[in-house]
Amino acid sequence: MREVAVIGVGITKFGELWDKSLRELGIEAGFEAIQDAGISGKDIDALYVGNMSSGRFIDQEHIAALIAEQVGLSEDNIPATRVEAASASGGLALRQGYMAVASGEHDIVVVGGAEKMSDVHPNEVTETLAASADQEWEAFFGATIPSLYAMIARAHMHKHGTTREQLAMVAVNNHHNGSLNPKAQFRSEIKLENVIKAPKVSTPFGIFDCAPSSDGAAAVILCPLARAREFTSNAVKIIGTGQATDSVAVHDREDITTMAATVKAAERAFKHANKGPKDIDLAEVHDSFTISEIMAIEDLGFVNKGEGGKAVENGLTTLDGDIPVNPSGGLKARGHPHGATGVAQAVEIVTQLRGKAGERQVKNSAIGLTHNIGGTGGTAVVHIFEVV
Amino acid sequence: MREVAVIGVGITKFGELWDKSLRELGIEAGFEAIQDAGISGKDIDALYVGNMSSGRFIDQEHIAALIAEQVGLSEDNIPATRVEAASASGGLALRQGYMAVASGEHDIVVVGGAEKMSDVHPNEVTETLAASADQEWEAFFGATIPSLYAMIARAHMHKHGTTREQLAMVAVNNHHNGSLNPKAQFRSEIKLENVIKAPKVSTPFGIFDCAPSSDGAAAVILCPLARAREFTSNAVKIIGTGQATDSVAVHDREDITTMAATVKAAERAFKHANKGPKDIDLAEVHDSFTISEIMAIEDLGFVNKGEGGKAVENGLTTLDGDIPVNPSGGLKARGHPHGATGVAQAVEIVTQLRGKAGERQVKNSAIGLTHNIGGTGGTAVVHIFEVV
Repeated sequence: MREVAVIGVGITKFGELWDKSLRELGIEAGFEAIQDAGISGKDIDALYVGNMSSGRFIDQEHIAALIAEQVGLSEDNIPATRVEAASASGGLALRQGYMAVASGEHDIVVVGGAEKMSDVHPNEVTETLAASADQEWEAFFGATIPSLYAMIARAHMHKHGTTREQLAMVAVNNHHNGSLNPKAQFRSEIKLENVIKAPKVSTPFGIFDCAPSSDGAAAVILCPLARAREFTSNAVKIIGTGQATDSVAVHDREDITTMAATVKAAERAFKHANKGPKDIDLAEVHDSFTISEIMAIEDLGFVNKGEGGKAVENGLTTLDGDIPVNPSGGLKARGHPHGATGVAQAVEIVTQLRGKAGERQVKNSAIGLTHNIGGTGGTAVVHIFEVV
Repeated sequence: MREVAVIGVGITKFGELWDKSLRELGIEAGFEAIQDAGISGKDIDALYVGNMSSGRFIDQEHIAALIAEQVGLSEDNIPATRVEAASASGGLALRQGYMAVASGEHDIVVVGGAEKMSDVHPNEVTETLAASADQEWEAFFGATIPSLYAMIARAHMHKHGTTREQLAMVAVNNHHNGSLNPKAQFRSEIKLENVIKAPKVSTPFGIFDCAPSSDGAAAVILCPLARAREFTSNAVKIIGTGQATDSVAVHDREDITTMAATVKAAERAFKHANKGPKDIDLAEVHDSFTISEIMAIEDLGFVNKGEGGKAVENGLTTLDGDIPVNPSGGLKARGHPHGATGVAQAVEIVTQLRGKAGERQVKNSAIGLTHNIGGTGGTAVVHIFEVV
């Protein structure tokens, strides 16, 4: 297999973007990435798009072809493929794009992620997101994604002694990082006491424990490492990729305080990269809820199982901590347009490894990791990046 | 890139399957393919699933992980990825599975296609299918997929002299083939006069010019050609794959009587296979409407542009014609569970090349082709298969 590099990145502002359609968001992120890579549309061989539910959010399927057309890529009739695994759709699109280049099938591949969630009523958003859980055995009976994660959080608190305050600290830290990111949906710092006193969503979660629904898009340009220098002097290598599946229904798992899909996906990505958790300088992880980030840093091997809450409390994950986590603000503060998230994570890591992250720049970062989850852990995908 | 073989196939009966859920259909086709390949679940490295609109048809996204879990594959936490490009979803899933094996990332890959369309009201089916057209510029203004294809048919009749009778002959031929296929949704022969007199859907189409909405699933097992003999003595090679995109909206095309996506996808697949249209012994093409098959045989290069209707009239495409088309009955008679169709086509070609197609067996077939369209031609994907 050929080595693969990222040669350009682009991302829209995330938020409630009432004046932009999904295709406009896709184009904006795509053009930024194309300009960043210094390529022209004619250079592009294929497009992959991560998207969770455009069929329900905007009554539109077939969106990879649609975005290709809008960007003008249908003139060359390039292949355009949408990939879906709920909120892990972006990470999976990146993985498919990676394989398309690694296999030799394509040279220059654009991987985009996009979601437009604010065109439907919030109740419809909740119902649509519940379609990433098991409809017949969970959602049909009234379970929502926040309620399932709340159950996971309660189990983690009970089994591992994780505290309400530790959960809240995840939100405080990610809002701090988001305040330094011009593309973030939420750019205000928040206080611990306000997280805890916030209106409840599903105990123990208040609204500040939950990532928002967002509109937004992100894109990266991939090419064979051997060709990267033709286009840019600051390419970033993808040195590891791993994907794994677990039962979609939470009740089918032996232990709900760990995500087997994350553990396996990380194991595969680390093996591929010939690296371990200790080699990682910074990470973008899937903090759809505050508990998700605590479980992620455990399941990725940054700390032992059960010690994630304490690690957050001790500052492991802050911008100047040992392993800065979610320097972008994460899903919590940068925002969470579901299909875009996995690609946005890659954009952030590449930006950081290039030393171009401005006020939120993590010092001495050479190797970064992204971690993207589908639903409540039915899918996980991990990528590892290294400066060239 | 490694050479890739199909070592097993499985398919459910297609139809209105009120007593089976999507996951049950996926499992049924998957198990049949696994048994056919003589592998065990433990051998499987990854799953790809083609599905168009499970989010709208059954309120369920994230279905690749869901099917993996139900088949027991989540025990090994294998990657499971859904791919979507409207009615070309199955063909695209096959292509991603192909790349996963060709790249060396995975060895044994299951490619499934599944759709469950009969759980919602027919009006909702029509609206959902219209989401494969351009929602903002076509569907929002009332265009449906049958009406868009009807416009294409009228243009083809006007420009190339294709007749109402020639359209009807496509349906007659495919119903004949379907009558010989135990898994087909429609197993009755129909008469030309009944096709023409049938209740109108959108002029010139009556109901017999339109493929049905269906429930069903299909699966193929891929592995590196070098390993195929470990499992089976009747493997079939995939010697060509090509995918292409065109404008999703019909009105953006220079000539609506040809599908540029089909032309380009075929060109790429033929180049990859180092073959041409004359080398093809039989084909499964995307006859979502009678006009689609006529355009397909032109755009694939079996006949010149404008001569498709005449070729059908002259018997080119019958089971004992020069290039038998849709021996399975096609979308028209075998049925059209949208995400399953592209995989079902591969199942039929493999079955034919193995000489196991029973009463509908095409004689002397060594090389076969599949052709799968998304929407009204925004996506096309072509695969070419050869006996080992």
